[in-house]
Parts: sequence; C-alpha cells; structure tokens
Amino acid sequence: MNTITNKFHKTNDFNEIVLERRSVKVYDPEVKISREEMTEILAEASRAPSAINLQPWRFLVIDSAEGKEKLAPLASFNQTQALTSSAVIAVFYDANNIEYMDEIFGKAVELGYMPQDVMDTQVQQVKPYYANMAASDLRDINLIDSSLVAMQLMLVARAHGYDTNPMAGYAKDQIAEAFGLDKDRFQPVMLISIGKAAKEGYPSYRLPVETTTTWA
Amino acid sequence: MNTITNKFHKTNDFNEIVLERRSVKVYDPEVKISREEMTEILAEASRAPSAINLQPWRFLVIDSAEGKEKLAPLASFNQTQALTSSAVIAVFYDANNIEYMDEIFGKAVELGYMPQDVMDTQVQQVKPYYANMAASDLRDINLIDSSLVAMQLMLVARAHGYDTNPMAGYAKDQIAEAFGLDKDRFQPVMLISIGKAAKEGYPSYRLPVETTTTWA
Repeated sequence: MNTITNKFHKTNDFNEIVLERRSVKVYDPEVKISREEMTEILAEASRAPSAINLQPWRFLVIDSAEGKEKLAPLASFNQTQALTSSAVIAVFYDANNIEYMDEIFGKAVELGYMPQDVMDTQVQQVKPYYANMAASDLRDINLIDSSLVAMQLMLVARAHGYDTNPMAGYAKDQIAEAFGLDKDRFQPVMLISIGKAAKEGYPSYRLPVETTTTWA
Repeated sequence: MNTITNKFHKTNDFNEIVLERRSVKVYDPEVKISREEMTEILAEASRAPSAINLQPWRFLVIDSAEGKEKLAPLASFNQTQALTSSAVIAVFYDANNIEYMDEIFGKAVELGYMPQDVMDTQVQQVKPYYANMAASDLRDINLIDSSLVAMQLMLVARAHGYDTNPMAGYAKDQIAEAFGLDKDRFQPVMLISIGKAAKEGYPSYRLPVETTTTWA
C-alpha cells in the first residue's frame, strides 16, 4: 500500500492537513489519480464510524472524460470543478444497506473481532428495529453516517497530496439514474471534487466557539 | 494555544489518528478536559467546511456532574458513556443559522478574505434561495454539514490524546429542552462521548471498496 507515489505534497502532518484545508474549486486538469490510489483513499476514508457499523455510504467515482461530460450539466454552478478536477466523487447512501448486515457482522466474527453469540443477538435486535424505524429517522442516520465518511475522505485526500471541495448544489435527483444506478437505492448526499489545486482556495471565517457552544 | 498539556498520548500523526481510531465506550471517570482545551478542540473541529460556509453546527458540552446526571436517562443504552466520559458533546444544527450569514460574511470582508461586492451579491442571492428551499432539503444540508464537523471533532480529539464514540441512539426529541435550549431551533444530530479510554475499543470490519464503489 506504500508503493504509490505522487509528485505532490503528500504529508502525515495532522495539523497541516486539518487546519490548512481549504475548499479548492480550480484544478490542474492534467493531473490524474490512478484507480489504485483512489481505492486506497476510499479505503482509508471508510475507516470512519457509522451507526451499528452498517457503512451506508456508497461512492461513484467519476474520473473518465465520458463520465465528466455526463456530470457537467448536472453539476449546476460547479461545472468547472466537474471538468478540471481529477475526479468527482458522488457520495450516496444505500437505502437498503441493512442487507449488508450479515456480511459485515459475519466477517467481524470470522476475523475474531466479535463472538458469534454477540453477532446473533445484535442481528436479531437490529433488523426488526431498523425495519420498524420511521423512514425519516433512517434517512437522518444514513445522511449523517455518509457525511462522516465524506469528511474523512476530504482529509485523507490531503494526506495523499490532493485538495477537495464538497458540493451541495447539483441535480441531486438525476445523478444516480444518469450513471445507471438504482435511484431508489442510491440516495444523494454530496459531490466531492478532488485533484491538484491550480488556484489556491480562499481562507474563510469561522464563528467563535462562544457563539456555537453552550456548556452544562 | 500550545500551552495546554495533558498526560495522554497527544499526537500529530495523521495515519495514527485516522486509521487507528476506534469507538471507545468505557472511559476513565477521573479524567477531566478543561474548558480551555475543549474550546480549542471545538475551534479546530469547526475548520470543517459547510455549504456557503454557514456553519449550522451547534455544540452542547455536558461536562459537569449535574449535566451528566440529567443526560444519563436520555442516553438510552449509552448511559455508561454518559457517566464515565470526560464530556458528552451533543451536536445540533441551528434551524435558523441563516441569521448568522451577515456576521459570517461581514467578518470575511473585514478580514480581507472576500471583497464587499462578492458578499453583497452572495447575500442577495442566498437569502431568498434558502428562504424558498424545501424544508426537507434544508434539513438535509444542515444534517450533512453538522456531521462533517462531528467527524473532524472525533479526529481532533485524538490529536489531543482523547478517544470518542458517536451515538445515534438517544432521546433526540428531549435533549434540547432538557438543557434549556429552544427545541425548534436546536435540531439533534448526534451525541459524542470524549475522554480517556479505560477499555480499548474493538476493531471493526469494513466493506471492501469494490462493494461500495462504482467507477464512471
């Protein structure tokens, strides 16, 4: 996993990655990210936590010329990023992710992370709980978990020497279908552009903690 | 900001922080996090991005004995964490966060991050856009942005030498009111316990990237 090299600023400096991250909207269109390295980035991002470890996140990596042409008209005012970035990662959640529970828990048992009886009890409790949960509550959980992975993805990208930009404004209702994914199952969360910055991101102001925080 | 010391494993090693993070559910109840250090953690977490930089996230830091006693019965099956962690951070979004747009953009202008005319144009466009957005779309954006900050918070905590656990199961509909916050305005996202691990978290399995990812 350490054989991938890239010519950018790869770093393991947490503070640099996190505190100096800025949203980048103009990329060097010559820079490609190999699918091997992108797989590594997605695997590292996917170490993020999720409710009951159900990992509802799904990724559509749009990195081909054809894919980008298809994406551009759906990217609203973010077309430049769609066309100049190395890739745009469309983050979805899988509305039927519960179907993977047996695989996820089964593998945990197989790997010695969890005893079989713990798995059996949890599967027996969680499946009816999820089946009976209000659709809006389940949606909230899936959006939240998929956003956790999205944030970790943006940071991991920087460790690999790339920058990103999260996009909330795009044709959310059309993107799954345009790329041949089941639109009932693949629910849109956000787009993330990734690549080598051609133009630095702008600094931005944050509300002070005293404005956002209450103590009890 | 660098004068805070703590006796735990403070680190700036990105891979250690991100790839070795595990959810911790049992904490050393003797360990306190000062409000000064917690403020630093929250400020670093708040460098996360958000749609139009509106920063909808709000934090309720429950770190007093009284606060924890009040929280415990609302924490469902997570009562042990509520009582043994240094603090539980209840993450909300502010349903009226658009009210802070003038402050956020005004400060950006003041700091030289943005020209006045860019601010004027954006404020003029965004306010009616947000006012006319479907309530469910606005809710999605706010949940997503508040989850981005939550993930960054969990990682920043590890840089400070602490562990965390995100909790989706609690009395979401009661928590704001129980702590005197306007429940229409403060919409629940998740709880995060933070402290020094007394019992290591379990390793957990992740679905392979080939299961979660499509290429285009």
